[in-house]
Amino acid sequence: MASVRIREAKEGDCGDILRLIRELAEFEKLSHQVKISEEGPCVVGYGIYCFIYSTWKGRTIYLEDIYVMPEYRGQGIGSKIIKKVAEVALDKGCSQFRLAVLDWNQRAMDLYKALGAQDLTEAEGWHFFCFEGEATRKLAGK
Amino acid sequence: MASVRIREAKEGDCGDILRLIRELAEFEKLSHQVKISEEGPCVVGYGIYCFIYSTWKGRTIYLEDIYVMPEYRGQGIGSKIIKKVAEVALDKGCSQFRLAVLDWNQRAMDLYKALGAQDLTEAEGWHFFCFEGEATRKLAGK
Repeated sequence: MASVRIREAKEGDCGDILRLIRELAEFEKLSHQVKISEEGPCVVGYGIYCFIYSTWKGRTIYLEDIYVMPEYRGQGIGSKIIKKVAEVALDKGCSQFRLAVLDWNQRAMDLYKALGAQDLTEAEGWHFFCFEGEATRKLAGK
Repeated sequence: MASVRIREAKEGDCGDILRLIRELAEFEKLSHQVKISEEGPCVVGYGIYCFIYSTWKGRTIYLEDIYVMPEYRGQGIGSKIIKKVAEVALDKGCSQFRLAVLDWNQRAMDLYKALGAQDLTEAEGWHFFCFEGEATRKLAGK
């Protein structure tokens, strides 16, 4: 296995990350939903996170996406990215770390559980709901 | 029905909002998870939102919680709070508006669907995963 370094993204990584986002969309069978464009070249995976607020637990980190190129999987890179996000969470005072996964992605679900995550959809019945652009505009009366 | 006004929260509402958070936790049968304290008195509902990032759609609003006191339900206050959040979403350049709901809360699920939301757990299989405090610390090696 080639040496892999987990680091914060820089502006120059944008092209690479966009390429990976497209690969992720293909993997998730949701390519038609990607609304962004541009091309680029040697980052092999990424994690995109942001900070949210849990009503009961306070400041929380949310991992919007994690992706590793197929030919680099099975080397523990995904786990390293998740550990890095957990470090950021603690550095920023977040006790809770949330993420979402598609139920047919057994490999990812098994990994998250093995790392100590709880499936809250399974355990408590949480469902994701979303208003897309048109529905949001209709709701707002615009 | 008494006149109800949907407005932004002020610092002085904290006691009231905390009282409602406790009521929400009881409603969700998850009171044991509330880690905050303090008391207070006449706000009858709230919505707590924050801004997140959707890899494919960009800036997104996330409604962490919405709650209306039982004796004020059935008056459309929940819908008004959701419409207000949709207005904020558009004002802040968010096309997507996400929220989560417990699967046994049929009334809420029906409301969100009637307002135009999609159940992404049902439609695409998204599951919520979460690392709680201890699991996050273990992950980060702390």
